[in-house]
Amino acid sequence: MSGEFELINRHFRRRSPRDDVVLGVGDDAALLRPPAGQVLAATVDTLIAGVHFPEQTDPADIGYKALAVNLSDLAAMGAEPTWVTLALSLPHADEHWLHAFAEGFHALAARHRVALVGGDTTRGPLSITVQALGWVPEGQALRRDGARPGDDLYVTGTLGDAGLGLAVLQGRAQVAAQYRAALLERLNRPEPRVEAGLALRRLASAAIDISDGLAADLGHLLAASGVGALVELPSLPRGDAVLVADPHGQLAMTAGDDYELAFTLPPGREGELAALAGRLPPVTRIGRIEASPGLRLVDAVGDPVAFSLQGYDHFREF
Amino acid sequence: MSGEFELINRHFRRRSPRDDVVLGVGDDAALLRPPAGQVLAATVDTLIAGVHFPEQTDPADIGYKALAVNLSDLAAMGAEPTWVTLALSLPHADEHWLHAFAEGFHALAARHRVALVGGDTTRGPLSITVQALGWVPEGQALRRDGARPGDDLYVTGTLGDAGLGLAVLQGRAQVAAQYRAALLERLNRPEPRVEAGLALRRLASAAIDISDGLAADLGHLLAASGVGALVELPSLPRGDAVLVADPHGQLAMTAGDDYELAFTLPPGREGELAALAGRLPPVTRIGRIEASPGLRLVDAVGDPVAFSLQGYDHFREF
Repeated sequence: MSGEFELINRHFRRRSPRDDVVLGVGDDAALLRPPAGQVLAATVDTLIAGVHFPEQTDPADIGYKALAVNLSDLAAMGAEPTWVTLALSLPHADEHWLHAFAEGFHALAARHRVALVGGDTTRGPLSITVQALGWVPEGQALRRDGARPGDDLYVTGTLGDAGLGLAVLQGRAQVAAQYRAALLERLNRPEPRVEAGLALRRLASAAIDISDGLAADLGHLLAASGVGALVELPSLPRGDAVLVADPHGQLAMTAGDDYELAFTLPPGREGELAALAGRLPPVTRIGRIEASPGLRLVDAVGDPVAFSLQGYDHFREF
Repeated sequence: MSGEFELINRHFRRRSPRDDVVLGVGDDAALLRPPAGQVLAATVDTLIAGVHFPEQTDPADIGYKALAVNLSDLAAMGAEPTWVTLALSLPHADEHWLHAFAEGFHALAARHRVALVGGDTTRGPLSITVQALGWVPEGQALRRDGARPGDDLYVTGTLGDAGLGLAVLQGRAQVAAQYRAALLERLNRPEPRVEAGLALRRLASAAIDISDGLAADLGHLLAASGVGALVELPSLPRGDAVLVADPHGQLAMTAGDDYELAFTLPPGREGELAALAGRLPPVTRIGRIEASPGLRLVDAVGDPVAFSLQGYDHFREF
């Protein structure tokens, strides 16, 4: 449609950073040249105003995050992102909003050399759906179903920052002023762990990204692998603000929006992981995979700890 | 998230009809094996309740149509559809609705041997975004920019049926009772012209699907090719009900939702087109491509005709 056309042209058509885009935005479909010997990784995620981000969020942050959550899914597969499509529904035309949204989106796309190859814009409640495509050599993908008893359990980065940032934003928590900006940055501009995912190919036995809280997402990994896990709560990596607000680790276990990776490492491969230090964000061992199904939490002396592990579920009653 | 997980499992996880799906729904991304020697065609389209379909539309029709409009885009590229992802936003859990939606979606997917490989479901205003992926041998795609002066202009099927169906549904038009069901079927269950797109590879010089009205979509093709066209209004293929309601061709030129293909044929290739009769729906020559930009309409004796060619634009003011 003509309006969509002009909109996409004005804000979303950029010179492609890739020479594998045969035909980009502007035809009925994009035409894309696959690399040899790899499999295509495809994922889709939607962000809806009021559900996935507060209504008043800076549109540049919305644009950034809509792409980031999808790149995070590819990272969790060990896939290299190449192309994305964007479906944008907006209640009314707002040039300033669109300009800022596109800037946030393209800032992250450029950093990962990802090309926006197609889009659809419609009038409707504010909602953004991104589909991300990437590539991984066949047999090297980081799946959820490869964890085995005896594997060690790791996470990248720190946990709970984004959740605490949201709580601060909503007035449910208070933190020292010096932490506020960094927590909101974690909430609004999560760093998809693309390089970590690539580095962990052929090393991690399983991986998942932590979008809905470690407990919930680790639960998916455990279920897919048919195993359980023991998590040592004091080991959960937390920044200073989260350590103060969440001394027992409940927030780190359950808060969403961190977009770190949880992964499992087969026994005897710690040296290879350590050798990747320059290519990885900080990684922390938080527990181990066990044969018995379920998730067990223990304190510093190994005693069981129980608290609610209800994660963040956007559509719980389904 | 667990809710999304269960939802997808219950309604959308089917045995894949394809052996190129290495890993389908249920991980961070699907893993898909590309065919050799082809380029990937990728497209995305959103349907929003109240914008793209009346709120009270049968959910089975919504599921069907959400897929159909995307397969139509691949058809217009001459691409063979293989995989789709689905982002579904729903205001509340409704098992009956979901069951019917999934049935409509899968009915069309099965017919074209398309696998649903990923999805995201969230709470929000009713909106469906489908991304469709397909393949076409490099150099054989039907692009919008290949039309040349002297090419003949064709369309598949008949035009205006869906638009008249919508007008009937909304009480803006009346038709004889015998036509009503067929018009609504065209509106709710458009037939994506996938086989026609495949058959037209290496024959049509350009193609586009007619989603927003022939005038609007042909305008995109003409602009992309840097040419103009003369359309003979009496030649526009119309069913009986449309001929009665639209004797001058205005509806056929402007009504959306037909999902027929418009394509151009280089001179001297009529015989090859005729030889495809068994593989194509009815095709009708409606005019020709000319060097002078713009769209010119003529009547039965070749005199110019002028009427509003404003097509259906979901977001006109952008």
